[in-house]
Amino acid sequence: MNFEVRMLPRRLLPFAIALGIWFAPVPAGLTEPAWHLFAIFIAAIAAVLVGAFPLLTSTMIAVAAVVLTGTIPAAKAFGGFANPSVLLVVIAFLVAQAVVKSGLGRRISLFMVSRFGSSSLGLAYSIVLTDAAIAPAFPSNTARGGVLFPIVLSVAQGSGSRPDDPEGRRLGGYLMFCAMASLAVSSALWMTATSANPIGLQVVKEFGLEIGFGRWLLVACVPALAAIVALPLVVARIYPPRVGRTPEAPLAARKALSELGPLGRDEWLTAVVFVVMVGGWIFADVLKLNVTSIAFAGLGVLLMTRVLTLADIATQGDTLSTFLWLAVLFALSGQLNELGFMGYAGQLLAAQLGGLSWPVTYVLLVVIYVAIHYLFVSQSSQVLALLGVFLDVGVRGGVPVALMAFALLFASSYFSVITPQGGSQNVIFVGSGYLNQRELYLLGLLITLFFMVVFLTIGSAWILLVT
Amino acid sequence: MNFEVRMLPRRLLPFAIALGIWFAPVPAGLTEPAWHLFAIFIAAIAAVLVGAFPLLTSTMIAVAAVVLTGTIPAAKAFGGFANPSVLLVVIAFLVAQAVVKSGLGRRISLFMVSRFGSSSLGLAYSIVLTDAAIAPAFPSNTARGGVLFPIVLSVAQGSGSRPDDPEGRRLGGYLMFCAMASLAVSSALWMTATSANPIGLQVVKEFGLEIGFGRWLLVACVPALAAIVALPLVVARIYPPRVGRTPEAPLAARKALSELGPLGRDEWLTAVVFVVMVGGWIFADVLKLNVTSIAFAGLGVLLMTRVLTLADIATQGDTLSTFLWLAVLFALSGQLNELGFMGYAGQLLAAQLGGLSWPVTYVLLVVIYVAIHYLFVSQSSQVLALLGVFLDVGVRGGVPVALMAFALLFASSYFSVITPQGGSQNVIFVGSGYLNQRELYLLGLLITLFFMVVFLTIGSAWILLVT
Repeated sequence: MNFEVRMLPRRLLPFAIALGIWFAPVPAGLTEPAWHLFAIFIAAIAAVLVGAFPLLTSTMIAVAAVVLTGTIPAAKAFGGFANPSVLLVVIAFLVAQAVVKSGLGRRISLFMVSRFGSSSLGLAYSIVLTDAAIAPAFPSNTARGGVLFPIVLSVAQGSGSRPDDPEGRRLGGYLMFCAMASLAVSSALWMTATSANPIGLQVVKEFGLEIGFGRWLLVACVPALAAIVALPLVVARIYPPRVGRTPEAPLAARKALSELGPLGRDEWLTAVVFVVMVGGWIFADVLKLNVTSIAFAGLGVLLMTRVLTLADIATQGDTLSTFLWLAVLFALSGQLNELGFMGYAGQLLAAQLGGLSWPVTYVLLVVIYVAIHYLFVSQSSQVLALLGVFLDVGVRGGVPVALMAFALLFASSYFSVITPQGGSQNVIFVGSGYLNQRELYLLGLLITLFFMVVFLTIGSAWILLVT
Repeated sequence: MNFEVRMLPRRLLPFAIALGIWFAPVPAGLTEPAWHLFAIFIAAIAAVLVGAFPLLTSTMIAVAAVVLTGTIPAAKAFGGFANPSVLLVVIAFLVAQAVVKSGLGRRISLFMVSRFGSSSLGLAYSIVLTDAAIAPAFPSNTARGGVLFPIVLSVAQGSGSRPDDPEGRRLGGYLMFCAMASLAVSSALWMTATSANPIGLQVVKEFGLEIGFGRWLLVACVPALAAIVALPLVVARIYPPRVGRTPEAPLAARKALSELGPLGRDEWLTAVVFVVMVGGWIFADVLKLNVTSIAFAGLGVLLMTRVLTLADIATQGDTLSTFLWLAVLFALSGQLNELGFMGYAGQLLAAQLGGLSWPVTYVLLVVIYVAIHYLFVSQSSQVLALLGVFLDVGVRGGVPVALMAFALLFASSYFSVITPQGGSQNVIFVGSGYLNQRELYLLGLLITLFFMVVFLTIGSAWILLVT
């Protein structure tokens, strides 16, 4: 009971926030449902940030509240459950189990450790560089996360790091966060590395800017590569994995690898399924294939061949949890946008910036654009809602159009790591349990700041030089 | 490997069915997508019926197949995940855990055993009669299932029956099936016991038949009560629970009950949450509350008060499995309807019946209407798709309109037990794992036949007498 009493003020806070905003006068330019949804949404996020309730609890209350109060219709509130990105996260989780269970993940991780395993930094670099190299082939960074995650998980497990070990989990947590942050910044490096980029290009086109694959790479390469190269060092600084140099690890891994012998049946099947899925994801646009369905097919084949069994799925209750909160956040964030709250907030903030010099306007716009991502669950929806507004304000404020456009386009990728749900690809890594919610928010904030500084300094200079 | 080879012909059969239908000429009156969807849907059901693949496996392959072949768009194929009935099943599962975990279920089950526990038959009757008594208050039989299920589960567990015990599971299986079948027939007893009934009444109204709560009850009471009263005996005959008379059980239960002492904190909270949820479900129509959101709120409160924890949700991987296959079946079955296949099949079959005497037409129409439910996952969608067509054919064939209408209206309730997914309320009981898929299909067929015989004989006579 003591615990209950001690927690009480903290637990009442989100309700106070919700009621306070709900009953405050609706600002001019907003509808009542948009304002009420904002009250509930902010309260749900605040509940998690102050540690009042876990994300699942606060989202379940939130979805019930928005529907029962008539703020948004049930069909819209439940829409996130049918969202292809949300489903892709869920299925990617299930499919990832096969890589671990079949032993293929262990084999790949032993291979990676045998090459780069003499330090945790070496492992992180091998993950980050692999991601950067394969990124241009993946139109969906969630799918890319689905490929990277089982490897990172196997490397973490293979190094003896488990989520339930208070000290030992740090190596796994370090690698998981490096992978998440890597996905964020590798999406900025290549035009085709995330679906948000082509959406952003459509918006930017209306400002007379035509950007192709090559020009994007030229402009992105200097800041993005700088951020990628520094990333494992910076994360290690903020969140030390507490594993020293292990010069004997590569030797041991090589030995274990040679003892493994040839690939077994399940390893072969898993490898084939993954290669076909990756092929499908890479050519999804060209062949007009739905990426989520490719994952469904992969899961189906793994179940059909009994590489995965119903008993394996039965252990995935955490995945159900993730499904529930992610779907709700996705839907509510989308509705906040659809009801006009996002556009309103963007224009309101942008309006405050009149009369400043253009470099100040430029920096402020980027900072605000990134900070607003606390409210968004999907990168694409923020791009659709706000990129145009912010670009417009920047150009009117005297910022060179190419500078403003590229800065916002890149931010639309790297800001995804700011919250655990800031990009659906994050959720796959978050679900591993190596990091708790508070660590994820803290690391997310610090690494987003780091990315922002790199892109605002090196990035701005380079953009001005080459455009 | 031997197992694999032995299973091969059985596993190839669904693919042969799918390809055979797919490449057969599209019947006149049907579009190509409707025909192709039918091929995939039938193959997925057949795969389960012949034991080639579990339901999860076959639905994952099916959803991938329909989207990747372009048969139906991804948004439609994934739509089932956002369906309120599907979500209600999922949340009802999670909420039911609280009844078990808090000890409230054990208390209620001890009470029931102390009253009716001298035989398995006594337990079954207490469940079936409780259901029949509370049914008129529940506009959603899925919600009613959500109330009954935790009690049935506690009674089964309290009697020492567990799903993984080959012999001991039979009592649990017996009670689960009685409850499922009870939900089917109690929905026929009261006009307000399921959402499919008012939908059916809308259809019937177009044939000049106005039916209110009282008239429905008058017409339904004789056949429905006959079926309800015989149900526990019939199921015990087909699927003996293999538990003899246990005259000492009520005494032991009374003793255990008195040792339990007063309700604990978690029991109180669970009881309050359930009473409020049930109240919400009962008055959902009047207060315009979404029943699924009420369940979300209940889950949220149970998580908030830590009656349920994230660790409890983490054990619910089976629920995720259920969510996945149910959502896919729901969507595909709905699409089969939307693409016009159901109406086509109904009219085609009905057209074959010309020239028969009206009693033969009547019986055949009911039999076919019930058999077609193998293809439907939702009662409401079959009512919407086919009730009008069948009623029309019956009336043109000389069947008295009231007889035909009531027979089809009642069938729309009792046929839900024909497959494990024939009504979303079933799925809650199926998920308990006490019965395997083959048992469920066999029992479903036999009990549906039993219901049909009761309603066609006693029911027809009574309808003709009172209308």
